[in-house]
Amino acid sequence: MIGRLNHVAIATGNLQQAADLYKTVLATNDQVSEPQALPEHGVTTVFVNTGNTKLELLEPLGDSSPIAAFLERNPAGGVHHLCFEVEDLDSACAQLTSAGMRVLGEPKIGAHGLPVVFLHPKDCGGVLIELEQTK
Amino acid sequence: MIGRLNHVAIATGNLQQAADLYKTVLATNDQVSEPQALPEHGVTTVFVNTGNTKLELLEPLGDSSPIAAFLERNPAGGVHHLCFEVEDLDSACAQLTSAGMRVLGEPKIGAHGLPVVFLHPKDCGGVLIELEQTK
Repeated sequence: MIGRLNHVAIATGNLQQAADLYKTVLATNDQVSEPQALPEHGVTTVFVNTGNTKLELLEPLGDSSPIAAFLERNPAGGVHHLCFEVEDLDSACAQLTSAGMRVLGEPKIGAHGLPVVFLHPKDCGGVLIELEQTK
Repeated sequence: MIGRLNHVAIATGNLQQAADLYKTVLATNDQVSEPQALPEHGVTTVFVNTGNTKLELLEPLGDSSPIAAFLERNPAGGVHHLCFEVEDLDSACAQLTSAGMRVLGEPKIGAHGLPVVFLHPKDCGGVLIELEQTK
């Protein structure tokens, strides 16, 4: 069912430092985007293009950021979730629910303007998984 | 410097259960490999092919598995490391060391028969990063 790994989301308490790490040490300047504030998602993002997929560096934005609790537990930052592409999100959710998986809430429009849902990490070997419809 | 994301390594205390999750729920049967014991690396692995990259499911093997401590801290499992490809590992290590990054030990031959090193997660925003030479 799952298709390509769309991105690996990495939470950080210091986006500038994380972006600089990739811009100047691990990656090259043209692999790393400028920061983009997404107040409706409670994060500011920087993308790192690895050629075959992306890293999405996430810093909390505002008072109720969805990554705030993760950073309280992991102050140094770390991998927050993995996002896989699916062709048809409604069909994927029906299939997952019938297999006993917990889909967290209803599909909503994600940071890339496409429908997304998250799956309960307890059903996914401790990994928070996002599914994003491909179009 | 870093190239493609070669794989996302996911540690699990129950490889059969993790493989079944991907084989029967999240992925399709032909995306998921059979388990492969790698006693010299202290793990048994299953690969999940997402088309653009791989997930590497890891279960401890033997008494001194490198993922045992991670599973003690994260009994449900979780993302253990990200592996990026580099063209020339010695040159990458020299560049990283001169930028003040801690390379953990000397390059050694990894699970795919290619030279690898790990970088200190405290220098990488809380993420354990493996670099693998492409050939």
